[in-house]
Amino acid sequence: MLNIKDIKKAKERINSYINETPVLSSSLLNEWIGHEIFFKAECLQKIGAFKARGACNTISWLIEDNNKPERVIANSSGNHAQAVAWAARQFNIPATIYMPAYSSKIKIQATKSYGAQVELCENRNVADESVKQASEEKGTYWIPPFNHNQVIAGQGTAIYEALNQVANIDAVFAPCGGGGLLSGTLVATRSLSPETKVIGVEPLNANDAAQSLRLNSIQKLPSVPDTIADGAMTMAVGDITFEYLKMLDDMYEIEESKILYWTQWLTHLLKLHIEPTSAMTMEAVAQWLKNQNTKKRVMIILSGGNIDQENQLTIWNNNYLDFRPNA
Amino acid sequence: MLNIKDIKKAKERINSYINETPVLSSSLLNEWIGHEIFFKAECLQKIGAFKARGACNTISWLIEDNNKPERVIANSSGNHAQAVAWAARQFNIPATIYMPAYSSKIKIQATKSYGAQVELCENRNVADESVKQASEEKGTYWIPPFNHNQVIAGQGTAIYEALNQVANIDAVFAPCGGGGLLSGTLVATRSLSPETKVIGVEPLNANDAAQSLRLNSIQKLPSVPDTIADGAMTMAVGDITFEYLKMLDDMYEIEESKILYWTQWLTHLLKLHIEPTSAMTMEAVAQWLKNQNTKKRVMIILSGGNIDQENQLTIWNNNYLDFRPNA
Repeated sequence: MLNIKDIKKAKERINSYINETPVLSSSLLNEWIGHEIFFKAECLQKIGAFKARGACNTISWLIEDNNKPERVIANSSGNHAQAVAWAARQFNIPATIYMPAYSSKIKIQATKSYGAQVELCENRNVADESVKQASEEKGTYWIPPFNHNQVIAGQGTAIYEALNQVANIDAVFAPCGGGGLLSGTLVATRSLSPETKVIGVEPLNANDAAQSLRLNSIQKLPSVPDTIADGAMTMAVGDITFEYLKMLDDMYEIEESKILYWTQWLTHLLKLHIEPTSAMTMEAVAQWLKNQNTKKRVMIILSGGNIDQENQLTIWNNNYLDFRPNA
Repeated sequence: MLNIKDIKKAKERINSYINETPVLSSSLLNEWIGHEIFFKAECLQKIGAFKARGACNTISWLIEDNNKPERVIANSSGNHAQAVAWAARQFNIPATIYMPAYSSKIKIQATKSYGAQVELCENRNVADESVKQASEEKGTYWIPPFNHNQVIAGQGTAIYEALNQVANIDAVFAPCGGGGLLSGTLVATRSLSPETKVIGVEPLNANDAAQSLRLNSIQKLPSVPDTIADGAMTMAVGDITFEYLKMLDDMYEIEESKILYWTQWLTHLLKLHIEPTSAMTMEAVAQWLKNQNTKKRVMIILSGGNIDQENQLTIWNNNYLDFRPNA
């Protein structure tokens, strides 16, 4: 399994390419909640999400190992597509991204703008099949979205930075899609701050990780889940990430209305454009804090800020700002 | 008239209270536009807007002058209300804010949270009359939103910081409401970087400043203007700010659809929650750049990020993200 040396090595590899994102807080929120909440703003990361870290680390690791690929490929409709396109460009490696044709125009556009060739596929299955075929070509390296040690090590650099930016954190919260961010967060936090709780958060409507932990085996969602937290829609965690997820202190499952509530409120209080997947974590924090007897300091990883117009309309359809957070 | 010493003095006074906000940029936007655009992120300022600077400087200046008031008051339905409430609290001075009852709940809520007493008035005229009456009470100081030298000097500290953060700026753009931000920006920029253009921007639907400049006398809008840029809805500039506005290099008037377009795009590219009033400036930049023959470096002051849910719905109603910016 990975250890803190792998995270440190990843941090060294990617340091000159990525942003050391700021840690922000809201004095109003802290006053209302009665605790101190810190936000690692990965929406301000390259490509607008932490995914830049894992993709960059993986390519850099290949080069370091004298395995510089002639081409990198990936299949994704989301932030991972942009991350691989962007990272490949940093090292002048051609990239091909297989995206379902129904992917949001804005993500296709950004992936192309980072210089990647985009292959639009009829649906997700075709994209999965195409990338698999392409990966058999000589010199081609397939960068998976989460189930890969170097991807995990890269994602772990976010909390590695954050715990160096702010000390004495009682608990770290991060969203769970495929589990890459959480796995890296766990490895880094257990070493840097062993007393700190590490807690995962997923939508109740896409709670495959929570179910998998309850049953102690990887469960796959029966169908594409209905959730506004599109970064956490992954159908199942990976066999590598699952081993780390088992070591979490807890996993919260969040209702859609609470995801929308906190997306509005954190956007408003922090003045950051954050994905529902990121804001979802704050509901878990609020629930966790209700059971604490002393004042706590909590770190949330705001995973990203890529939202299309349709989802923005859904987010702002009801007015949650009339009901302010409280303890 | 004010000079750079007043801005420097203001910066010293407010330095320990306000945030030195970051200057951000978007590599995609720069690539698409073919120039370098820098954004001074005043949405990340205390209370979510540059207004904190002017209010803080004014109170600090009063105290320095041995005129510490027993109470400060203001009339505002917007960011100035929160700014005065917040600034008064920094110096332990009671504040009363007169707000029209129809002000957005979220702004009333925030103003109260900063510790101010909020007097809800039937309408804007009643609020104006009430604050005037209250200002006659002994020991009470009325902080106006823009037409005041110390407010202007405070607002000028934003560009003072920005020009120290990034060098060789060819032009500075800022929105025009009552003209306080632009006046301070002009004073600071003319001294720190005399070759740099200073350009104002207002909604075409609320173009009292442009009209005033054309006619060389202050024009008042006949009725409350219909614009999404609510920070620039001011009915008329002040006699003090007008003298500075006359020295601007240009004033652009922007159509509503362009304001919406850039609010979506800058939110998406910068991952910041910014008011339409802030994003509006980017259309002026785009128009100005079309007439430039060499690559330019431009600084935009993103004035704030306080938006209620109703305006968010208006902003995201149509999809402008399908049409990407270009040169």
